[in-house]
Amino acid sequence: MPVFKEAFATAALATVPQEPQQTDFQLVRVKSTWCRIKKGEALSGCEDKITLSEAKISDMQSTKEEQTDFKPCFLTIARGESISEAGISWTIEAPIYFCYKVVETYNILDPANTTLLWGHITDPKQLELATSSNKKLKRFIVIDEVVDELYGSKVREYFKENNVQHKILALPTTEETKSMDLVLKILQEVQNFSIDRRTEPIIAIGGGVCLDIVGLAASLYRRRTPYIRVPTTLLSYVDASVGAKTGVNFLQCKNKLGGYTPPVASFLDRSFIQSIPRRHISNGLGEILKMALMKHKGLFDLLKRHGKYLLDTKFQSCSGCADRGDAALQTTRIAIETMLEELAPNLWEDDLDRLVDFGHLISPELEMRVLPALMHGEAVNIDMAFMTYVAHTRGLITAEEKEQIIQCMRGLELPVWHRGCSWPLIQTALMERLKHSGGQPRMPLPTGLGVAEIFNDTSEETLERAYKLWVRDCKTELEEKPAAL
Amino acid sequence: MPVFKEAFATAALATVPQEPQQTDFQLVRVKSTWCRIKKGEALSGCEDKITLSEAKISDMQSTKEEQTDFKPCFLTIARGESISEAGISWTIEAPIYFCYKVVETYNILDPANTTLLWGHITDPKQLELATSSNKKLKRFIVIDEVVDELYGSKVREYFKENNVQHKILALPTTEETKSMDLVLKILQEVQNFSIDRRTEPIIAIGGGVCLDIVGLAASLYRRRTPYIRVPTTLLSYVDASVGAKTGVNFLQCKNKLGGYTPPVASFLDRSFIQSIPRRHISNGLGEILKMALMKHKGLFDLLKRHGKYLLDTKFQSCSGCADRGDAALQTTRIAIETMLEELAPNLWEDDLDRLVDFGHLISPELEMRVLPALMHGEAVNIDMAFMTYVAHTRGLITAEEKEQIIQCMRGLELPVWHRGCSWPLIQTALMERLKHSGGQPRMPLPTGLGVAEIFNDTSEETLERAYKLWVRDCKTELEEKPAAL
Repeated sequence: MPVFKEAFATAALATVPQEPQQTDFQLVRVKSTWCRIKKGEALSGCEDKITLSEAKISDMQSTKEEQTDFKPCFLTIARGESISEAGISWTIEAPIYFCYKVVETYNILDPANTTLLWGHITDPKQLELATSSNKKLKRFIVIDEVVDELYGSKVREYFKENNVQHKILALPTTEETKSMDLVLKILQEVQNFSIDRRTEPIIAIGGGVCLDIVGLAASLYRRRTPYIRVPTTLLSYVDASVGAKTGVNFLQCKNKLGGYTPPVASFLDRSFIQSIPRRHISNGLGEILKMALMKHKGLFDLLKRHGKYLLDTKFQSCSGCADRGDAALQTTRIAIETMLEELAPNLWEDDLDRLVDFGHLISPELEMRVLPALMHGEAVNIDMAFMTYVAHTRGLITAEEKEQIIQCMRGLELPVWHRGCSWPLIQTALMERLKHSGGQPRMPLPTGLGVAEIFNDTSEETLERAYKLWVRDCKTELEEKPAAL
Repeated sequence: MPVFKEAFATAALATVPQEPQQTDFQLVRVKSTWCRIKKGEALSGCEDKITLSEAKISDMQSTKEEQTDFKPCFLTIARGESISEAGISWTIEAPIYFCYKVVETYNILDPANTTLLWGHITDPKQLELATSSNKKLKRFIVIDEVVDELYGSKVREYFKENNVQHKILALPTTEETKSMDLVLKILQEVQNFSIDRRTEPIIAIGGGVCLDIVGLAASLYRRRTPYIRVPTTLLSYVDASVGAKTGVNFLQCKNKLGGYTPPVASFLDRSFIQSIPRRHISNGLGEILKMALMKHKGLFDLLKRHGKYLLDTKFQSCSGCADRGDAALQTTRIAIETMLEELAPNLWEDDLDRLVDFGHLISPELEMRVLPALMHGEAVNIDMAFMTYVAHTRGLITAEEKEQIIQCMRGLELPVWHRGCSWPLIQTALMERLKHSGGQPRMPLPTGLGVAEIFNDTSEETLERAYKLWVRDCKTELEEKPAAL
């Protein structure tokens, strides 16, 4: 037994000095046992293989004297002779490493493409083991019922051809059905089907709502079961598939219950997008434009130049149009990379200063108020259009830049104004924002084309001036063509 | 704008070489924007304040040639002239730091003790801010209904005296009611009461079941709301309060749904333990003995020497008995510290080799089979008693050590055998274990008093010999005094 073990035992039972005393410990594993060692202490006399953990424990003994100054006083413990006056407080710090993959693929439902079966495995040894095993594969798949109508037979064929024991659960996944009830329904089926919680990931095929619900179900099942996201809409392709968020609505509140458990992998196949309506393409373009305005001038130029083309071709690559390069491929790749840049360092949203919140300050209120008149990306775009006027009013962008942004939105066939977005609604929405963002508005605003910063000092007066300008410029045109909504 | 931004934009759009190519990126924040830089690259020309994230993104471009060898082939994307043959795969690695406190306190319900209000705040500035604010405090409290009968009026008095706007929800929290239904009931009340998700933690007061349910509810609410654990039984004092696990039963399966979200703080007040029945003290002693047998000879000696005293005094410190030191204080402290050592480096149970699983290989099957005849710690102890015989049969401990362990268990008034624990049940339970622990039994066994290792090579024959010895030694005595169960 290494020497530090004895030292620890003694320390734990020793009497405590009158001074408050904090001790920081690291954790090391010797054979099967984890032990604390004082930070910096060496492991002399230990010949076994040692593993060092990144987790830390520190303890603090607070004395009676100290407590009078220290507001959250830990009252002293009645004690026997040999024990200290102090209460102990332990602080535990432990990092959890999340690792996930986002993988572009094509023809994911072609039985010869094994991405859906093995693509989530990163470690070559594990992959070797999994692919060479004789055990029959088993997969549980949740698919949106509309996607099932279009692709269900191909999905069934895929798993049959690959000799996979499978259960396909087709469900209506809409904002109305996005509830804990549906999560429990999925889990009941998962339990009946029975999967190995370590090696048989649950697969979700559908739009953002489907991916969110299945993500929550999987993260709850046996405290975490891996899952795979296969987005079938443009919006979920560039948004839900990239991040860690899961969730369902609760008591009429959007995504009130959920978590931050990323999938093991998201598999991106643009060919699904060819079967969604044109308005849904615009909807996804709204979130892509957000990333362009916040941090990528090149992406903004792509959208400005090729917006109509992307809508017409529904993001299907077209080798006949050499002059455009592959605008669809470039657009989605940059959208994903910029999203990953912003999400990866802030996976659990601990940092409230988030550029990806652009377009999401007023739109939640607007979207819920006029439901189902506006799709998510449309409501986001209306919010962004107003904020573009705010940025201009503050002098952050020129009139010409503002004009370019609004023109680009129109080119993407996104609404730049909505009658539901009244001045009182904006005020209410910004009050709500304050509540949820630690008392500051944390307002992302463009400071040019493809660059932005977060501001906390936009005056009510500026907002109102911007609102008036915005209504003056944007209202009329839309009233003339309400069909665009 | 720093130079690397342009470099990135170019890289993202450039044509790709025929060799598969992996690039590792770090993430840095310049003003409000996160950007990728290649690992090792310097940020020349950048004068702004820079933050480096621990998150990483790497991308891999797989070429057509490579894919033929690589089983999970990412089929190439149909493309325009200027774009690569390759599909991209991004890998995201992001650490999330969990930090929580376990705090010993006394008289937690004394209005003068502010631990329950402020004890979870670690940062002195935040504490200063919180305690000096004029805003009325708001707390939502869930309390087990039995605890409410005993302490409800004190709890109400506490929050009234401290001028805290509060809602106290008393609920039956038993294995039978431990369900998602109860979680949703709590969440409905939380939503009605309305709390600030960042500054108003939910408080749970009760035994392990109560702490587990509330933990799950809080972790789901708005994707994570802080919560505080106040254990009122000995078992939850040394077990549920220390770790990160939350959960509810589902479809007759124990803790089938849940997560690993630690509380912001656990507040430990031993005075609650004086009101629980003697059998419940033994129940908690079962889990304490587990830690003693696995890794702390000193704790084992304490239990052996002072077991009856701890049961008689219900862990209430007694300054009149100087010769015993403060056995209660020492016992609970060491139990908590050894638990923290094992849990902190493995908070999400990614490592399947766990000493804390001792006593938990056969007991889940036994506990569910004979419910409600055995309490959790009793079933654990029966499992440990059998495993002690296994260790002896394997030659890991001497007959004298085995005898000391069994005698200690008896001293703690814990059952060392149960008629429900038949040979077929043991076989079934170990098969189940294999399913949930990656195909290996990972059997923790004592290799002396207070030391242990994990074994994967215990033969069926050894198990059966141990079983026969165990039944021979332990069966008769218990049949003579069935009241002990």
